[in-house]
Amino acid sequence: MSGDNNWFTEIFAPSGSAFGLAITKKLDEVQSPFQHIEMFETTHFGNLMVIDGVIMLSSRDNFLYHEMLSHPVLFTHANPKNVVIIGGGDCGTLREVLKHPDVETVTQIDIDEQVTRMSEKYFPELCESNNDPRATLKFDDGIKFMREAAPESVDVIIVDSTDPIGPGEGLFNRAFYDSCRKALRHGGILVQQSESPLIHMPLLKDMRQAMQDVGFDSLQTLLFPQMVYPSGWWTCTMARKGETINGFREADAAAASFSTEYYNVAVHQAASAWPNFMKKALQNG
Amino acid sequence: MSGDNNWFTEIFAPSGSAFGLAITKKLDEVQSPFQHIEMFETTHFGNLMVIDGVIMLSSRDNFLYHEMLSHPVLFTHANPKNVVIIGGGDCGTLREVLKHPDVETVTQIDIDEQVTRMSEKYFPELCESNNDPRATLKFDDGIKFMREAAPESVDVIIVDSTDPIGPGEGLFNRAFYDSCRKALRHGGILVQQSESPLIHMPLLKDMRQAMQDVGFDSLQTLLFPQMVYPSGWWTCTMARKGETINGFREADAAAASFSTEYYNVAVHQAASAWPNFMKKALQNG
Repeated sequence: MSGDNNWFTEIFAPSGSAFGLAITKKLDEVQSPFQHIEMFETTHFGNLMVIDGVIMLSSRDNFLYHEMLSHPVLFTHANPKNVVIIGGGDCGTLREVLKHPDVETVTQIDIDEQVTRMSEKYFPELCESNNDPRATLKFDDGIKFMREAAPESVDVIIVDSTDPIGPGEGLFNRAFYDSCRKALRHGGILVQQSESPLIHMPLLKDMRQAMQDVGFDSLQTLLFPQMVYPSGWWTCTMARKGETINGFREADAAAASFSTEYYNVAVHQAASAWPNFMKKALQNG
Repeated sequence: MSGDNNWFTEIFAPSGSAFGLAITKKLDEVQSPFQHIEMFETTHFGNLMVIDGVIMLSSRDNFLYHEMLSHPVLFTHANPKNVVIIGGGDCGTLREVLKHPDVETVTQIDIDEQVTRMSEKYFPELCESNNDPRATLKFDDGIKFMREAAPESVDVIIVDSTDPIGPGEGLFNRAFYDSCRKALRHGGILVQQSESPLIHMPLLKDMRQAMQDVGFDSLQTLLFPQMVYPSGWWTCTMARKGETINGFREADAAAASFSTEYYNVAVHQAASAWPNFMKKALQNG
């Protein structure tokens, strides 16, 4: 498929696997100061954003990831008022967060403005809430932003980043997690995309260890499908400050005033069912 | 990747997607009277069986599918003694079923003996129970077998087939489901792999409708990840005769004497959490 103009193919060398989508044309591309962003029109998955050769999202299946990075954490926190999104430049996570009427402010910090400009053009549905008065979009270094954030000023931090290589690398270490923990109020929760349970277990284990090492009191890793990411199976990990992670506001989720395509109460609960191989791999962390 | 000897790539045209695994060599191939069977050695997923160009299973991830096709149905039936497997020639489902000590007989009917011969050679771990005295392996037409089965003689029928094209086609229609229902005792359950929730919804809807049309009283579609199948997300559907499908023997599953890599009580319960888009699509069936 590679070398064939009718396909975009991502080869994931660490697991010897590849995933491709049939494309009708390349819509756009830009070399930003940080990365190479390409946009394709696919035959069956709508538009496709690729950064440095790695698939970021498609129109058709991004709802899985964006909903799972937003609603479980917001319905686990008792009263999330102030939310920070690190990364998330396509604005899909921002849109989901803003569906929660009780959220008062959402600050999104993506290092690369070009990601948002591309998304406004090719994923307008994800950017439909960008002008919500509760939203602030900053284009800056998320690591620095968290390091300089006022202590105990945030309820929920969502790290919606690329993989832990390139610009995303500094978002997967103790220094960053320590900054996040300090910025969170008591009971606050950090949630971060944490790669594939099938092919990235060492990374997931390291992430969880690092979150514990900086003093987060309780963790929960959630599983969900994501067709366009390696293995088609993905996770996010929540880390809570000062309290256990068991606080799912089931009644509030059931009574939610907004609609979702994937998320619901049963899906939320199901996402924390760990397969045996995962329990075994993470039993000491 | 296609045209490159270092990859095996399956293009799934109906969704404009493709999945590939890096291979080190082709191990074997045979043209049986029914289909073309190829075996590859991959770099990261062990051995890979391909039938008529479609990926069937890899050493590394087949546990997901085989466990989910076996344990949920056997822990839902109150007392499964006599089990029939239609298809399943790689013997992975058979191995899982035989882990249940209370099962007295398992009859596997795959039309193609060459699938089993290949599996014995390249997936010996899946065939380790083939000589269990409770197991009978027949190489014959599963449709005919079910049509001629004695009425009310079977507790559980597992349809572990290829896709509904080629030899597997006749396993996805009313005539076959009617034969299965007649062969089941009261409370008996048919379970069948039912493709991807993301890209095969019309097929899943038709299957469920056909199962209801022939008189099955209650259905349950379970979801699970399966990296090597299109979209990486798969389902199986249970159809029960004479009783509702709500009979999960949770205590027995929790006390199971055997080990599994994916399946456990929480995973079983989680598998029936339907996403909103699926509820909407299947609301009338």
